[in-house]
Amino acid sequence: MYNTDLDKNQANFQSLSPLSMLKRAAEVYPAVEAQVYGEIRRTWLQTYQRACAMTDALKGRGIELGDTISLVAHNGPELFESHYAVPMSGAVLNAINTRLDAKTIAFIFDHAETKVVFVDREFSETVASALTLCQVNPLVVDIDDPSFEGGRLIGELTYEQLIDEGDQDSEWHMPADEWQAISLNYTSGTTGNPKGVVYHHRGAYLTAMSMAFSWDMPKYPKFLTVVPMFHCNGWCFPWTTALMAGTNIFIRHLKPEVLLKLIKQEQVTHFGGAPIVLNMLNNANEKDKTGITHQVKVMTAGAAPPAAVIEAMEKLGFDVTHVYGLTETYGACVICEWQPNLWDHLPKSEQAALKSRQGVRSPAQEDHSVMDAESMRPVPKNGETIGEICLRGNMVMKGYLKNPSATADAFAGGWFRTGDLAVWHADGYMEIKDRAKDIIISGGENISSIEIESVLYSHPAVFEAAVVARPDEKWGETPCAFVSLKPDAQATEVELIEYCRDNMARFKVPKHVVFGSLPKTATGKIQKFVLRKMVPV
Amino acid sequence: MYNTDLDKNQANFQSLSPLSMLKRAAEVYPAVEAQVYGEIRRTWLQTYQRACAMTDALKGRGIELGDTISLVAHNGPELFESHYAVPMSGAVLNAINTRLDAKTIAFIFDHAETKVVFVDREFSETVASALTLCQVNPLVVDIDDPSFEGGRLIGELTYEQLIDEGDQDSEWHMPADEWQAISLNYTSGTTGNPKGVVYHHRGAYLTAMSMAFSWDMPKYPKFLTVVPMFHCNGWCFPWTTALMAGTNIFIRHLKPEVLLKLIKQEQVTHFGGAPIVLNMLNNANEKDKTGITHQVKVMTAGAAPPAAVIEAMEKLGFDVTHVYGLTETYGACVICEWQPNLWDHLPKSEQAALKSRQGVRSPAQEDHSVMDAESMRPVPKNGETIGEICLRGNMVMKGYLKNPSATADAFAGGWFRTGDLAVWHADGYMEIKDRAKDIIISGGENISSIEIESVLYSHPAVFEAAVVARPDEKWGETPCAFVSLKPDAQATEVELIEYCRDNMARFKVPKHVVFGSLPKTATGKIQKFVLRKMVPV
Repeated sequence: MYNTDLDKNQANFQSLSPLSMLKRAAEVYPAVEAQVYGEIRRTWLQTYQRACAMTDALKGRGIELGDTISLVAHNGPELFESHYAVPMSGAVLNAINTRLDAKTIAFIFDHAETKVVFVDREFSETVASALTLCQVNPLVVDIDDPSFEGGRLIGELTYEQLIDEGDQDSEWHMPADEWQAISLNYTSGTTGNPKGVVYHHRGAYLTAMSMAFSWDMPKYPKFLTVVPMFHCNGWCFPWTTALMAGTNIFIRHLKPEVLLKLIKQEQVTHFGGAPIVLNMLNNANEKDKTGITHQVKVMTAGAAPPAAVIEAMEKLGFDVTHVYGLTETYGACVICEWQPNLWDHLPKSEQAALKSRQGVRSPAQEDHSVMDAESMRPVPKNGETIGEICLRGNMVMKGYLKNPSATADAFAGGWFRTGDLAVWHADGYMEIKDRAKDIIISGGENISSIEIESVLYSHPAVFEAAVVARPDEKWGETPCAFVSLKPDAQATEVELIEYCRDNMARFKVPKHVVFGSLPKTATGKIQKFVLRKMVPV
Repeated sequence: MYNTDLDKNQANFQSLSPLSMLKRAAEVYPAVEAQVYGEIRRTWLQTYQRACAMTDALKGRGIELGDTISLVAHNGPELFESHYAVPMSGAVLNAINTRLDAKTIAFIFDHAETKVVFVDREFSETVASALTLCQVNPLVVDIDDPSFEGGRLIGELTYEQLIDEGDQDSEWHMPADEWQAISLNYTSGTTGNPKGVVYHHRGAYLTAMSMAFSWDMPKYPKFLTVVPMFHCNGWCFPWTTALMAGTNIFIRHLKPEVLLKLIKQEQVTHFGGAPIVLNMLNNANEKDKTGITHQVKVMTAGAAPPAAVIEAMEKLGFDVTHVYGLTETYGACVICEWQPNLWDHLPKSEQAALKSRQGVRSPAQEDHSVMDAESMRPVPKNGETIGEICLRGNMVMKGYLKNPSATADAFAGGWFRTGDLAVWHADGYMEIKDRAKDIIISGGENISSIEIESVLYSHPAVFEAAVVARPDEKWGETPCAFVSLKPDAQATEVELIEYCRDNMARFKVPKHVVFGSLPKTATGKIQKFVLRKMVPV
């Protein structure tokens, strides 16, 4: 009887989409600042009007449901606005990693069948090359940021000219189906072609809400946009900030002194960033670090942050929340939830160690497990047995675009298989021991590269550290450490190996230490596949 | 291409249901207190285990998908736990207004085809009578609260005995379809039989999230359960508190001195209540009111709260949020959002007047409008033109059980028609002028009974006021006021009519004032249909 004459209709059912968050922000918080970038300050009403105009202009240019619009843009207003304008037109937002080479970008244009490319002058040369390499022939639109010098205009018109073609009072429609694609994010695969991760409106809506809960975020946050929006759509915060009537503060190039100045000037309350960004702030000039008198919350992910980095950050007065996720899971879908009753009284170093664990599923993710990869049974919660982190729920991608076999592999067994190896603690918190491909197997023993890195980071002279496997005739593999030192700090290979001996089991101690700066991805992840090629013979 | 090989599967799609919030609370916040009632203190893990056991026991008793389980229970642990245990078994939760008479309860049992009734000793006589009047023959389970004296056991076994029949480690399943019914709430219709409003899992999940956003609620709230859970499932807070790792503090009978004592003792941070409850607290003993040194947030709805009541509450140090909604909209789906930049500097009385408006849609409700009831076009946002409040989105019921014609009427034109008459202000906030049936039409002019009541409430001697239409040969109708006075306060009919003359247009002034206590519903709403029968000839 509960299914009779009780159907869905226009009044009681609406597709979930973050687009409604922008509409509501414009209705309810029209005068609240949505965007701050240099001289630019725009309210939520203005943001909505510009998105409506852009949507109308895109439709006028022939954009239809399911078309792809790509951006090679800096982390600023245009990319932010496109998180609304593109899906409002029915198209799919494809924000491309700006550090990619022309050949890879050309591959993406073709694979995504890109209809329009928005390109920032900073990346005009690379994109111009990509356009000569690809098969598709998209409309090219320049992002012509007057505050940036360099590059050139390579398009038919500029972003602002395109907006001017549209009517800000034009109608647009919510997606008819919440399973409709909203964005396409290519993973920076270490081998082979990148895979295109497809997000849907439902997942983006729920993630936008969940991120606010994960952070216990109050209304009117001042959000510094550090995480690139081409990376998991900036962990979906471009949408969360509309929900929470927040202000997005943009910055083109990440420099510690500029970040710290903006934090003070705009009274930033929240930002996210890779551990490498935190480390950069920790090691900034003392002068730049002083004068922050308000509460700043930092969310970090992208690699397991060494406890030493968290501890230094907290000493600076920043409250660090550690989260975990992958491009395939809309960014951070696992959170190291703080337990006030249990942890508040612990020493700072123990707190930092607890915080460096990945944690538990965030509110909108439905399930998490650490599983034996063969049997797909959960490992015991003993903090020792290593298994694969598996996730399921509404914060998991639709799949990989035009890649059914990779999609099937990723979902084998009814879970999303992360490929990350972790232990499960008695309190239900997961702790990554390594990427499946980063684990070092020495004499039959699993060695976590992360454990060794954590010890190295706690050495006073070490700035950054990464450990990879070095082929070894006797042991199969042995750990090899790559280390960069802090300015003016000194340490020798022997000294660091000694330090490791004092702080870990003998079989885990690296046999080699190589000094020098470490290669990184655009999101600040250290590129271990590059280091593996640099291992001394 | 975005719809090919990108289907829903076990890994990337999960029905939305608040049941997952309880599971997560038990996993992530196992030791946090979920329930406080007299001597009882239960954690989220214990709450989950009891719900699992009850679910297993209900299944053991033959309960199946789509069965109805009714409760006539006080606002305590058993009704709270049933918000989880009943839907976890696949059944539909039907919490019945405890003030209803036996005949109406019997009608509900039959209409809902109730399979199990949980009955509190306090209501045993009425339910025993209802069971002799109804056709169905449900299993009767007693809620045997040792802290309550009176009534008798009329069932086959007690709630605790039933829990003991179940296994707390038994498996249960999330709903296969999020459109599945989760609860059934009968509206206390003023004429005819009550209508059964059906909620679905999707709406309950989204409302539970939305309520936290509406209140800007941080984690670990201490929530005093004042709103009856039989009323819109307590505005869905039994589910929100699991999401937010909150503590529910229960109270059997609403007495101002007990409420105020609990607020101090349990450091209550949040509660909801009808304006009548706020008024009760405002008029409590000074001794009971002192000693509250922490922030208390109050959400009020159920009637437009007179500005004077809000102002008095704020003077007491309580922060009042005004919300609006109906049983059909999961409770509060419209909120009078505070605008700090615009309103913070205004005098308290102006702030209270702004707060007494109903406001704008809450985050999970997709649209609201004030519409001309005939043309279904929005009225101008001029603060003057009266129209009907119309709502749409995911916080709207599935419909009325076994009542397709009433369902069709409610959704006529693709919106949920509230029957409430309001103006739309330039800032997008709606303000109710009256229920469609409460408006007074005098000499062809619409008179808002609420406007007159607001003036009466601002008179120092007035405790409660309600205005209804009195048939009049010359004018058609004229306003008639019913007033109760504060203890030891005095006022005459002439004096109050004079006071109204000084504060409103002449044609709106009530022609009669009747003194005496006002009849109310279980949720504290003044029963105007009773007053209409008491109008002096």
